[in-house]
Amino acid sequence: METVSENAAFGGVQGVYRHASSSTNCDMTFGLFLPEEVADGPVPLLWYLSGLTCTHENAMTKAGAQAWCAEQGIAMVFPDTSPRGEGVADDEAYDLGQGAGFYVNATQAPWAPHFQMWDYITEELPTLLGERFALDMDRQSITGHSMGGHGALTMAMNLPGRFRSVSAFAPICNPSASDWGRKQLTAYLGADEAAWARHDATLMMQDSGFDGPILIDTGTSDQFLDLLKPEALAQAAAARRQQAVLRMQPGYDHSYFFVSTFMEDHVSFHAEALYRG
Amino acid sequence: METVSENAAFGGVQGVYRHASSSTNCDMTFGLFLPEEVADGPVPLLWYLSGLTCTHENAMTKAGAQAWCAEQGIAMVFPDTSPRGEGVADDEAYDLGQGAGFYVNATQAPWAPHFQMWDYITEELPTLLGERFALDMDRQSITGHSMGGHGALTMAMNLPGRFRSVSAFAPICNPSASDWGRKQLTAYLGADEAAWARHDATLMMQDSGFDGPILIDTGTSDQFLDLLKPEALAQAAAARRQQAVLRMQPGYDHSYFFVSTFMEDHVSFHAEALYRG
Repeated sequence: METVSENAAFGGVQGVYRHASSSTNCDMTFGLFLPEEVADGPVPLLWYLSGLTCTHENAMTKAGAQAWCAEQGIAMVFPDTSPRGEGVADDEAYDLGQGAGFYVNATQAPWAPHFQMWDYITEELPTLLGERFALDMDRQSITGHSMGGHGALTMAMNLPGRFRSVSAFAPICNPSASDWGRKQLTAYLGADEAAWARHDATLMMQDSGFDGPILIDTGTSDQFLDLLKPEALAQAAAARRQQAVLRMQPGYDHSYFFVSTFMEDHVSFHAEALYRG
Repeated sequence: METVSENAAFGGVQGVYRHASSSTNCDMTFGLFLPEEVADGPVPLLWYLSGLTCTHENAMTKAGAQAWCAEQGIAMVFPDTSPRGEGVADDEAYDLGQGAGFYVNATQAPWAPHFQMWDYITEELPTLLGERFALDMDRQSITGHSMGGHGALTMAMNLPGRFRSVSAFAPICNPSASDWGRKQLTAYLGADEAAWARHDATLMMQDSGFDGPILIDTGTSDQFLDLLKPEALAQAAAARRQQAVLRMQPGYDHSYFFVSTFMEDHVSFHAEALYRG
């Protein structure tokens, strides 16, 4: 593992690291914020999964999360959104291929050899983080934005006991029924929709729900509301009697100005579960 | 004046606006954060001047300032760092020409026709802001980073009564004696160093000081410390018995991780002067 950069930030360190991934068969880069409390022993870990077109860097520089993670003594990891590099398949569209991994293990050509983001985020990267950094891997929570909110919700519901809490900013809630989803799930997983179900937060909510608290914020002026379908997940969560706070925030859009506005709430929400849950 | 974008942020609005400037003879773009209190009447204004290579956008997306400005009910304006466009002179170096206006009025060819950033920031833009937005122009303070810290300090000391407080993140403190300064002041103002004096914070501190509080943070691991020369300004401020807090922050570098870490302190410092000064 190679250290790309380390910057002092909010009493801790914002690092960027690169490593050869056996899941994605290419080099992967991630950001990791460690609060100063890491000097005294392992700290809880909050995952932040990013949206379409993002790398590890967007949230790390624009979400303002470090201020709140430092306040709570929580580490935050910022993975990339896909495999990358010259040998990695790509597409001209912004919403398929590099920058658009959708947090699944691809089974279809030409994506399968590298697009194994599910395994990378749920298996390889946690193992690496637990070995290399002073992180308490028994205390993890997860959040994300847009495509990353989809990833956070589906991972949390598919892996009971892994995450103490899950939140999302403007998540893609029902990809099986959205143009942000059908195209990518078809490309990566094939036309058999049975393989898609565990990668759809609304279907997972109907099937099993989440064994902990959920917080979701979506802006009423989000330019992608028709693609996100918060109403589908809201219906499923209410029908299930799932412990959840689903907020529609008046006037907010899909941007990082929206994400950064509510980041303090989300980090506090996770801190409650990580320290007192 | 054209609205480029407006995003809801922290209860207020982060806008980006473009207008034809008579100072710089080209279109200029700036960011402006307005807190929700603007609905109740004019709010105080904090200027943020950016550093080399930056546009209006860097601090607006990476400094995390809106959270604290919203908390304090203060507006923040993010001007560009130079004139821009096809007809505007430029240089291959990152530290001269577009993105490197140094907050002076150029008198030398080929810069003079457009590089009038002093007049733009101190005259034209304040007039425009006061006319178009609910800002209390009797309550202004100023801050900046690196080249922008130089601009903030020199403007505050040259314009007694304009700003109630001034702060800076890793400012260029003594450009007359630095490679970040001699090159640019020669190019823009000519070889006669007498014309440089009012654009050197250390020389201005020796000459007149500032009639209000000063806060300056610089990182001990700043990779540009030899160019910034905080020791020159510290000596001059102490010799003058200037009201000032000059902090060397252990381990911090020149990045926006440093700026964002101490932004809360700076906004609180200015709020104290703007509301109670």
